[in-house]
Amino acid sequence: MARQARAIQTRRTILEAAGEVFDERGYDSATIAEILGRAGVTKGALYFHFTSKEDLARGVLGEALTTEGVLPQESKLQEWVDVGMVLAHRLPREPLLRASITLSADQHARALLGTSWPGWIDYLAEMLQQAKDQGELLPHIDPQETAALFVGAWTGVEVVNSAIAGGRLEEKIAALYDHVLPGMAVPGVLGRLDTAADRGARMWRAHRNSLGADAAAPGA
Amino acid sequence: MARQARAIQTRRTILEAAGEVFDERGYDSATIAEILGRAGVTKGALYFHFTSKEDLARGVLGEALTTEGVLPQESKLQEWVDVGMVLAHRLPREPLLRASITLSADQHARALLGTSWPGWIDYLAEMLQQAKDQGELLPHIDPQETAALFVGAWTGVEVVNSAIAGGRLEEKIAALYDHVLPGMAVPGVLGRLDTAADRGARMWRAHRNSLGADAAAPGA
Repeated sequence: MARQARAIQTRRTILEAAGEVFDERGYDSATIAEILGRAGVTKGALYFHFTSKEDLARGVLGEALTTEGVLPQESKLQEWVDVGMVLAHRLPREPLLRASITLSADQHARALLGTSWPGWIDYLAEMLQQAKDQGELLPHIDPQETAALFVGAWTGVEVVNSAIAGGRLEEKIAALYDHVLPGMAVPGVLGRLDTAADRGARMWRAHRNSLGADAAAPGA
Repeated sequence: MARQARAIQTRRTILEAAGEVFDERGYDSATIAEILGRAGVTKGALYFHFTSKEDLARGVLGEALTTEGVLPQESKLQEWVDVGMVLAHRLPREPLLRASITLSADQHARALLGTSWPGWIDYLAEMLQQAKDQGELLPHIDPQETAALFVGAWTGVEVVNSAIAGGRLEEKIAALYDHVLPGMAVPGVLGRLDTAADRGARMWRAHRNSLGADAAAPGA
């Protein structure tokens, strides 16, 4: 493997270990020693990529804004739904993604590191604006307002569901869409949206297959 | 003042100070010393009511499930709306209520103390069941599922809005209702629901006036 490819893989291994430890312990209790042990890399390798625990946490948050697995759709509203559905499928399978919510929900870590929420809101607002320009949204919908609400609602549903051991996240997020879409979509679009709980899993499998990845890969 | 009334007032003073400190510092960094200083009571008085920081935090969480200010309505769906609207009005004015979200959002504190979320879900589910029995909800709505989703969505909207300094919580929560109610209410009920952003403030004022409380009271 070329030196650069190895470095990218090592960085990824470290971030995934950091994600696990931040997700399990929270920011304050996480230690570089535990992340090192989990990653199985040398101290030198870790410090080559990350200078401190704070730097590691920033790296984890930098991976949070991901739409891997979301495919372009003719209906931009369907694509907007798919973003949340694919994430609901991936989150329980990827500690690195869960860690970004753990870090953002923690008042201390948030004050130190910021969150990926503004990035998510802008991304989803742009997508809703395109849906609106295509005539898919009811006229009163303000893409920026709806995007901000939805980022909050999605995050809160995940946090509360996980705290009360409520069940499969994909089902909760599907139900969230079923609650909000009738107040957002024009009737002709509403009936054609796929909000089945397995939508995210299907999208993710199609994406993995298109990469030729094996079924044992994370999130598969 | 009778001894019992004094004790109740002292307990409340301590809880409000604890709410401020937990809200500002988070659970781990909060100290009994700072709570003592804020409350302006003696150490003996504090330890008469609360044996530890953990006990103080449990006391704070015990105050979280409050519907003070919500008046009975003919439409149970309106009353369900009012619960979230009044809380959205009170929360920015009452550190004791904010602290319960801060404590619940913190993974560590949550593992130690639990949350008020199961209580909220059961309370709101019961109210939605009454609305359904009165024919106010669309037939596919499952009161328990919707209540759990809504507790998550409400909480997440608050946390994200506060993190990004998004604006007045009352407006965000009103917009959340406007997004979910068209997918929940039968058409004849939907048009008659009051989801104006100042709904909570009006309800709260009416409640304070009914008590003859003065305008300087918390939340007035």
